[in-house]
Amino acid sequence: MTRDIHMVDVTLRDGSHSMRHAFTEEQVRQVAKGLDQSGIKYFEVTHGDGLGGSSLQYGFSKVNELKLIEAAAEECSQAEVSVLLVPGIGIKDDLEDAAKAGAKMVRVATHITEADVAKQHIELGKELGLKTVGFLMMAHMASVDKLVEQAKLFESYGADTVYVTDSAGALLPDQVTERIKALKDQLNCGIGFHGHNNLSLAMANTLAAAEAGATYLDGSLRCLGAGSGNTQTEVMAAVFERYNYKTGIELYPIMDVADDVVAKFMPRPQEINGSSLIMGYSGVYSSFMLFAQEAAEKFGVDERDILTELGRLQAVGGQEDLIYEVAREISEKKKQRTVS
Amino acid sequence: MTRDIHMVDVTLRDGSHSMRHAFTEEQVRQVAKGLDQSGIKYFEVTHGDGLGGSSLQYGFSKVNELKLIEAAAEECSQAEVSVLLVPGIGIKDDLEDAAKAGAKMVRVATHITEADVAKQHIELGKELGLKTVGFLMMAHMASVDKLVEQAKLFESYGADTVYVTDSAGALLPDQVTERIKALKDQLNCGIGFHGHNNLSLAMANTLAAAEAGATYLDGSLRCLGAGSGNTQTEVMAAVFERYNYKTGIELYPIMDVADDVVAKFMPRPQEINGSSLIMGYSGVYSSFMLFAQEAAEKFGVDERDILTELGRLQAVGGQEDLIYEVAREISEKKKQRTVS
Repeated sequence: MTRDIHMVDVTLRDGSHSMRHAFTEEQVRQVAKGLDQSGIKYFEVTHGDGLGGSSLQYGFSKVNELKLIEAAAEECSQAEVSVLLVPGIGIKDDLEDAAKAGAKMVRVATHITEADVAKQHIELGKELGLKTVGFLMMAHMASVDKLVEQAKLFESYGADTVYVTDSAGALLPDQVTERIKALKDQLNCGIGFHGHNNLSLAMANTLAAAEAGATYLDGSLRCLGAGSGNTQTEVMAAVFERYNYKTGIELYPIMDVADDVVAKFMPRPQEINGSSLIMGYSGVYSSFMLFAQEAAEKFGVDERDILTELGRLQAVGGQEDLIYEVAREISEKKKQRTVS
Repeated sequence: MTRDIHMVDVTLRDGSHSMRHAFTEEQVRQVAKGLDQSGIKYFEVTHGDGLGGSSLQYGFSKVNELKLIEAAAEECSQAEVSVLLVPGIGIKDDLEDAAKAGAKMVRVATHITEADVAKQHIELGKELGLKTVGFLMMAHMASVDKLVEQAKLFESYGADTVYVTDSAGALLPDQVTERIKALKDQLNCGIGFHGHNNLSLAMANTLAAAEAGATYLDGSLRCLGAGSGNTQTEVMAAVFERYNYKTGIELYPIMDVADDVVAKFMPRPQEINGSSLIMGYSGVYSSFMLFAQEAAEKFGVDERDILTELGRLQAVGGQEDLIYEVAREISEKKKQRTVS
């Protein structure tokens, strides 16, 4: 029996973190063209922190994201461009502009306990004729019951699909199975999963999600994404084929865009090092990684200690300033220990 | 409930492939010291293809492996050095020399259907007072019944432990579960698993093996190993801790040797690219990768086509010459197509 699933590539959105938001128009066109030709149906193009993310706090984009969305859409013969919108970072005007630029899908992302801030954005997405997705981030920080409650909110706003988003790469396969099954049992909309590879379990989690009934599965080429990156799109295509899922994706073309395009411009390989491992182990938001590296250098402390403390404090997206405060505190404690 | 497992690090043996067998004594000492201090109980030091592997066919070692085994053993306060022996490549004298140099464990490796060639080597290992392991390579190429039959041979020779070795990174988690469970049901000796990450499933497979009853689990620091490398040792330590397994390993020290020692000397990151992915997908021996790259360049053909054909031919270790023959044939077919 073959089962249809949709792979959603996020190289041009989650990968924006690893690229320090410096994608060029030419890079975006090449990736978009390659994805489209390989048979990918949906891929996301936005600043790493979503529409409107280009800012002092989150990092300025090199090229205006609307221009990138437009360029990506122009390269597509069959694929559709998705955009990410984090309410509070992006506003309704941004979504209208993105739709004009050619976006066909919006994924409205909130912290796992805050779906209620997304109502107007899902509704606007529907008015604009977009496919709409609720994207529940940091899913490891809430119980299964809380997840179901929040997912139901998204469904009640009209979302076509709701995602379990493992922003920290902290979930284990059986936790993914439990979460997806609960949503599948209690919701009627589509279910999706977005993984990060901090514990080297992104592929296992994605597979667990599909086996439990998720039909929208995120990945990125060469894992390009925040932290230690995402489930690897081209590998996922091969693994799903081994499991008799029907993805509609051809292997050589998807490998080609990974190896001949993305691998050529990525600034560093998406390895799992001590810091990204601690993030998954302690449950820290993946996009905190580059900030923690900078803070560790500035205050002369162990990056892993910063991340462990952020995990203990249950820091969430938007609290980037806290990273520096934590680093400063660790540094001061270290000095006191040296003095006393 | 905590469960005891033994992690076996193979950086200094499987990693030898990625290093083109060019480990220096200083590198080996640093890795050995770091592993020992982190609490690892067993780690392997040998040419990538086992004792005696240094040769024209498999690649010459930069430093004599006996010297490396001795250096590694000298750095250990509690850890023990293992050596790999592939009958036909290594001989009994090599094992005697390795034991003199300080090896405390021998893993006798055969193709999944050829355990019967290992009898004398397991027996010699026992005579020498070594821990003995049967290492059944390319485990994806045989049925579960065949695996059990071959594992029983190793047990009958006196092996303390028998491994399911996924040399091609081709097994899926449920296949690992099925294989380990069958061995657990039908054998009395210890069970081990050695994974490769070609399908980004090494960690998932290792976890599946532990859950099914394997207590010896292989990994390498920063995944340094043949093909796309092994299960990542330092990540495994963290993941097993999340699952309440007791590994005896401290996280910061094991991360330090991975990031501050191994990452500094590895020639390239252990990413999954099109070629290593095709190897996992088609079931090709991981140590064929560098040969296939060379052959592809020499004959001007797509490396992936060579690997796909090797998978179809069910090529096994020892058939390295076949890689060039296959490349030549693909090249000639390509020329004929161009002409006609």
